[in-house]
Amino acid sequence: MHNDCHICRAEGFSARARVEVRAHVGGRSVLATVIRVKSGLLGDQEASLSEAAWARLSAQEGEEIIVTHADPVDSLGHVRAKIYGKSLEKEAINEIVRDIAAGRYSEVALSAFITAVADRALSHDEVFYLTDAMVSVGSRLDWGKGPIADKHSVGGLPGNRTTPVVVPIIAACGVKIPKTSSRAITSPAGTADTMEVMAPVDLSVADMRRVVDAEGGCIVWGGAVDLSPADDVLVRVERQLDLDSEGQLVASVLSKKVAAGSTHVVIDLPVGPTAKIRSPEMALHLVALLEQIANRAGLQVQVIQSDGRQPVGYGIGPALEARDVLSVLRNDPRAPDSLRRRALDLAGALLELVGVVERGKGKVLAAEVLRSGQAWQKFQRICEKQGGLREPVLAPIKQEVLSPTTGIVTAIDNRLLARVAKLAGAPSAKTAGIDLHRELGQPVEKGQPLYTLHAETRGELAYALEFLGRHKEIFAVEAQ
Amino acid sequence: MHNDCHICRAEGFSARARVEVRAHVGGRSVLATVIRVKSGLLGDQEASLSEAAWARLSAQEGEEIIVTHADPVDSLGHVRAKIYGKSLEKEAINEIVRDIAAGRYSEVALSAFITAVADRALSHDEVFYLTDAMVSVGSRLDWGKGPIADKHSVGGLPGNRTTPVVVPIIAACGVKIPKTSSRAITSPAGTADTMEVMAPVDLSVADMRRVVDAEGGCIVWGGAVDLSPADDVLVRVERQLDLDSEGQLVASVLSKKVAAGSTHVVIDLPVGPTAKIRSPEMALHLVALLEQIANRAGLQVQVIQSDGRQPVGYGIGPALEARDVLSVLRNDPRAPDSLRRRALDLAGALLELVGVVERGKGKVLAAEVLRSGQAWQKFQRICEKQGGLREPVLAPIKQEVLSPTTGIVTAIDNRLLARVAKLAGAPSAKTAGIDLHRELGQPVEKGQPLYTLHAETRGELAYALEFLGRHKEIFAVEAQ
Repeated sequence: MHNDCHICRAEGFSARARVEVRAHVGGRSVLATVIRVKSGLLGDQEASLSEAAWARLSAQEGEEIIVTHADPVDSLGHVRAKIYGKSLEKEAINEIVRDIAAGRYSEVALSAFITAVADRALSHDEVFYLTDAMVSVGSRLDWGKGPIADKHSVGGLPGNRTTPVVVPIIAACGVKIPKTSSRAITSPAGTADTMEVMAPVDLSVADMRRVVDAEGGCIVWGGAVDLSPADDVLVRVERQLDLDSEGQLVASVLSKKVAAGSTHVVIDLPVGPTAKIRSPEMALHLVALLEQIANRAGLQVQVIQSDGRQPVGYGIGPALEARDVLSVLRNDPRAPDSLRRRALDLAGALLELVGVVERGKGKVLAAEVLRSGQAWQKFQRICEKQGGLREPVLAPIKQEVLSPTTGIVTAIDNRLLARVAKLAGAPSAKTAGIDLHRELGQPVEKGQPLYTLHAETRGELAYALEFLGRHKEIFAVEAQ
Repeated sequence: MHNDCHICRAEGFSARARVEVRAHVGGRSVLATVIRVKSGLLGDQEASLSEAAWARLSAQEGEEIIVTHADPVDSLGHVRAKIYGKSLEKEAINEIVRDIAAGRYSEVALSAFITAVADRALSHDEVFYLTDAMVSVGSRLDWGKGPIADKHSVGGLPGNRTTPVVVPIIAACGVKIPKTSSRAITSPAGTADTMEVMAPVDLSVADMRRVVDAEGGCIVWGGAVDLSPADDVLVRVERQLDLDSEGQLVASVLSKKVAAGSTHVVIDLPVGPTAKIRSPEMALHLVALLEQIANRAGLQVQVIQSDGRQPVGYGIGPALEARDVLSVLRNDPRAPDSLRRRALDLAGALLELVGVVERGKGKVLAAEVLRSGQAWQKFQRICEKQGGLREPVLAPIKQEVLSPTTGIVTAIDNRLLARVAKLAGAPSAKTAGIDLHRELGQPVEKGQPLYTLHAETRGELAYALEFLGRHKEIFAVEAQ
């Protein structure tokens, strides 16, 4: 609103005041933060809105709006109580989550909530209430009877793209696996981004149901399905703070699984110094909490700790990861063994969890389904049903990054590698990213390539190279 | 920036990304949050800035700017450590406060810091380090040798405008009292707003020094003096969260006193159910902390607990409070006794603290200086030196609010009263506010006025009345 707008002044809408905006009496409303402008962008009694607010209000340009001081958000009292060290009851957590999902929390209020529940500040009861509340404010899918399989990977280990391998194996074994995946938020690729290189993923719930009815599985973007809207709001602020919050992580993962209608879930938990879970102690504590809350939420969950010290597969970035996925599914001898093994571990565990095979036999069955081509056949049919299989193409611009010394690769920094891939353009430039040529423990000679940068423009390649110039520590190569 | 701006896309400046904006290479920079627009407000390679950013960059319209991803704010690591339960060392707190004062913390980061130090989360050492760090990032005034007197009131009790009475009493006794006061942030009047009704307050440090050299005291707005810039940043976000934070409160109060060059400070601590300090237990704990930290910071401090159950004086709002102040200084028999007594309590304690009189004799001296007209003479001279004494005028529109019943006034809600005064236009409408006709314990008959609303426009009066219609509980009147 304009600084001199007389409504703004009379109502006392100071900069950053929280206001309620209504398109017409009785209509839908949004809570907004006032930004005041002095220039001629807006006139007296004019206001402009964010895209999100336009959409939510279904407002038309030129329409009259009603702007009032927002009522105080009562559930913030519960957040304050938590900050003062009190435990939260079920109904208090319900009120908080409802207000968050309704967009009633400002960024400042969201940050206070996230800080208040960070680390291990939530009791088991509170984590369960939070999980339950997050499910109840969103949509919930129902796939009828029978086990509904699902998987989840905690933390963005670059290249850890097991889903497109696991789903067709499970579906080929006759187990339903209606998988929803996310796009990248801060990583160089989310599963939905990688899958989109090979097939459309932006399906409605009805289309998703059609694919699952026909093939027993799908791999679609979860964004259109609105499974845990409160989590979607929180995640944006969480990333800015980079706070570890065990309770929030567990509630986030499990609420999405319950909302997706899953009954049996295998969770991949990479552990490593530059992974999300940095130590065995953190992993142990998290596994216990995941299993207990899953149990209370009625989910069968198995957590598999995996090697999080380095990326999985060769490629980082949507197209390069898709290439790896296809090479594994096609039994290409050049396929990355790390991706193949990890996908089989997860698929095997899931087959055992749903009871298709007895304990200890899952991986053998998964490997056979992959080797025989059944998984590849299933994957092609799923892609066809989702709108058609597409082959990934690679980037037009490539540049090798060479080892400055001769020795053994002793450490790889996942976080810095992810940053480089993003600077090179991933995920919005689908073919951009990194193609790795060495892994931990392998020898390399001075001047041999450690990895190749892929980019779609010279400018983006330059950004990535400039960053590399300042961060020599991505690969540690030590002389023997 | 525009959604389609190719720099925005190539650099990956997503909505709400934190970026550094520089007016030219080597020039001053600001950290900013990216807002992306889709409309024609901005073109490709155009950006618009907030008023604060324009001022800070000294940028000219049409000038070229350099926008880059902001470096991560390293001191956020210390904030995370605090959230995880660790204690902060002196240097860690220095880094946090430096970054906050430099505007490097986003609202989300500020909120996390405020939440992490809320309640009693800071140790005595941490509160002292915080106080010290807040002083070191701002300006610091030096008034030469001799005691420099000061006062402070905690929490905005409506009408508690003792400063313009205390300062001339102290100065008339030959003790230096260079008082800086604040404007209202969320209250219907700050001391600077009330004082401005009677004389200019927007003085430079040089002008302030000239007044103090001549008269021994002044009452000016502290905003131009930049005494605790980190506190100014924090206070804006604190108000949104309404979190009690003992350590933050103590550091805020004491850092401003040290920076103002004060040596002897009396602190007024109103206690009451709708005051900032709600219980004797809170008060006791806070007094102990204030005294210990003041001692370490080299300040002589005396805390005086006072009655915070109801407003002080009759008027709430700049002009009405100024009227009360002048009636006390002029020994008008209709002057509010509550304001007179409280000002004498504080002035007396301050005279004892600086050693002008022995213990127990301060209030008698203060009363004599007021009664004899010396305080009124001194106040007039201070106002003349600040730019000239002005008489307050009252509002053109008045409306009495009547008691709905006969009985005794048993409770008054300070917070709701403040809200009504603001809706009526205070403090930007100087003459708007509330004139009280009853106080706690007094009898009132049905239909007699409890208070009168003052407003400058019919619209603002209507806002206040509408709010009153929804909040009947501001005055509790109970039949005997």
